[in-house]
Amino acid sequence: MHGITDILFRLFIIFTSAKIMGELFERFKQPALIGEILAGVILGPYLLNMIPQQEVYQVLAEIGVMVLLFTVGLHIKVEDILKVGGRSTLVAVLGVVFPFVLGYIYTLIAEHSTLEAMFIGAAMVATSVGITARIFADLNLMDSEIARIILAAAVIDDILGMIILAIVTGAGQGTLSYVNLGIITLEAVGFVLFLILVGTRLARRYVPRVANLRTRNAVFALSLIFLLGLSAVASSIKLAAIIGAFMAGLVLSEFNYQFQLTQKAESLYDFLVPFFFVILGSRVDLSLFADSGIWMGAGLITLFAILGKVIGCGLAVIKSGLKNAFTVGVGMTPRGEVGMIVASIGLASGAISSKLYAVVLFMVVATTVLAPPFLRKLLTPK
Amino acid sequence: MHGITDILFRLFIIFTSAKIMGELFERFKQPALIGEILAGVILGPYLLNMIPQQEVYQVLAEIGVMVLLFTVGLHIKVEDILKVGGRSTLVAVLGVVFPFVLGYIYTLIAEHSTLEAMFIGAAMVATSVGITARIFADLNLMDSEIARIILAAAVIDDILGMIILAIVTGAGQGTLSYVNLGIITLEAVGFVLFLILVGTRLARRYVPRVANLRTRNAVFALSLIFLLGLSAVASSIKLAAIIGAFMAGLVLSEFNYQFQLTQKAESLYDFLVPFFFVILGSRVDLSLFADSGIWMGAGLITLFAILGKVIGCGLAVIKSGLKNAFTVGVGMTPRGEVGMIVASIGLASGAISSKLYAVVLFMVVATTVLAPPFLRKLLTPK
Repeated sequence: MHGITDILFRLFIIFTSAKIMGELFERFKQPALIGEILAGVILGPYLLNMIPQQEVYQVLAEIGVMVLLFTVGLHIKVEDILKVGGRSTLVAVLGVVFPFVLGYIYTLIAEHSTLEAMFIGAAMVATSVGITARIFADLNLMDSEIARIILAAAVIDDILGMIILAIVTGAGQGTLSYVNLGIITLEAVGFVLFLILVGTRLARRYVPRVANLRTRNAVFALSLIFLLGLSAVASSIKLAAIIGAFMAGLVLSEFNYQFQLTQKAESLYDFLVPFFFVILGSRVDLSLFADSGIWMGAGLITLFAILGKVIGCGLAVIKSGLKNAFTVGVGMTPRGEVGMIVASIGLASGAISSKLYAVVLFMVVATTVLAPPFLRKLLTPK
Repeated sequence: MHGITDILFRLFIIFTSAKIMGELFERFKQPALIGEILAGVILGPYLLNMIPQQEVYQVLAEIGVMVLLFTVGLHIKVEDILKVGGRSTLVAVLGVVFPFVLGYIYTLIAEHSTLEAMFIGAAMVATSVGITARIFADLNLMDSEIARIILAAAVIDDILGMIILAIVTGAGQGTLSYVNLGIITLEAVGFVLFLILVGTRLARRYVPRVANLRTRNAVFALSLIFLLGLSAVASSIKLAAIIGAFMAGLVLSEFNYQFQLTQKAESLYDFLVPFFFVILGSRVDLSLFADSGIWMGAGLITLFAILGKVIGCGLAVIKSGLKNAFTVGVGMTPRGEVGMIVASIGLASGAISSKLYAVVLFMVVATTVLAPPFLRKLLTPK
């Protein structure tokens, strides 16, 4: 009984701090997740040391991030992606290639390993659709052409980011050779394509039948079965668990509206995702920032993260004028949660050092905080 | 990484089996929870041995049962209880006293300890409002007088059951003396009364302010904070954690409708409660049933469980005729989840043997399965 009391108290403290810090950050027009990460930094082993290295907290955080990616997947309809056409795809692809290459080369030059360079590159590719979407919503510009380009590109980014993460995670678990990299790439692409082609078809056939079962919220129960099952499969074939979670959402996305899946997943999100961000923050070793060298590294990575998106995405739409190109680039800059997830997987699997982990988290927070005011300015007519 | 893969696979298997067995049982007009328990018996250490003795499964089950009791609490408005008046209260009180005394005396006579007798008594008092309510709903009799008496009495039962469980749990952790029993009774009653009197008032004052915060679903987040916090407090003052969870629901029940708390908690329920019932079932040592003695014990306890409610509750409404009295008694007979929760706390804390645990589970399943067809017959006009 003593064990469970202790765990309940810690869960209470983690959850409550996350919500309070999230609220504070929202008041300063910053995303709540930065507050939740800061709560983790404060509760973590380097300051208050209130989160023990116990499996149960890791598992809750893992289920939290699975729910998060599941929700992201639920919002992506494969058909819609195919419709948005070339421009968004080009923005997404160049916006993935440039930051990856910049991050990869910089990390190699800074005398880290190839695997570390791959992880840092992977952490630089994602675009947080949530942050940018919110700014467009705030300014009532959701229906503008520029918003549609950016949001579709951010979604394609998510898919590309997942594939790159899958490859990098797989590469981190074997010997790093071109043959291995080829195999893991085939596996990752195969897993994603199989689920897009076969999974969605099976879902279309069986989900309506499941809806007729006697079990309460049977389709939601089925989506939890998918979430757990595909995460387990992805994890067991050496991709990251969250890739399975993401694909589970994607496979079910066409039923999202009909069975209110996002709405039902929202409570799981509200309860579990804060544990993920707090645990994420708790892994940041603040003492590293006493070394001035890390500030250099963090500053440079942040610079490359911004340049990568502004140049890459900007180039893709340069024909529509310099200002538009710049706006698209800035809109694609915030990294948000996906960049952090990549870094945390790298840290947990031992692929990247705690120093690089801290650097990536700094970069993600910086791009997420810096981009919105710029974007707001660019979008507001003088 | 290997650890998390293993855990995800087991979570997938536990959840999927629970949902499949639940669906099967619902098809045979039986409550899903019995199917979920059976899934646990099958997956448990005595048959397939697929659920390791690992903290993470216990914690998920514990959060599951907390969510369950939280939801029960959410449906209880203190004002409504005060309104239903004497008859339901009498049905509840006599329906608690008779089964408790019968269970207590029988267990003592069967040469078990006083503490075991107290736990068995406590496991016999609860009435599962869900099972009975469903039958009334099926027969379109929700608005009948008899339904209102039974449902209100079942709710009062829950509160009395929680107080008795609190006392018994507390008693199980100290030396068993009248002084100790007095202290723990005061503590349990004090905790419940304090939250009813002060907690609801504070909630009335601060919940509307919380609703204005920027955090998404702020009131739901607050109720999760209450759920975790009060469970931790209850657990630390030696009451059971679920008593805190139940009181968290009760304190917030008047805001249930306005902020759709039940609806939001439903997804957490759908996801987490199956883990509780599966773990509950996994603790049943089937080999015990090879001994014919246990069948005797299980049969007798079940008989006393039925007699206790039929006589106790029947007596309370005997003035309205024998058939009505019998109907009320039968309607109060199904024990459902609360009886099992008491037994599982007794087993986990070492207060009752695995043999008595199996006996109680048998009794709960038997009363839950047997009562509905009888009640249906009694309520259907010839």
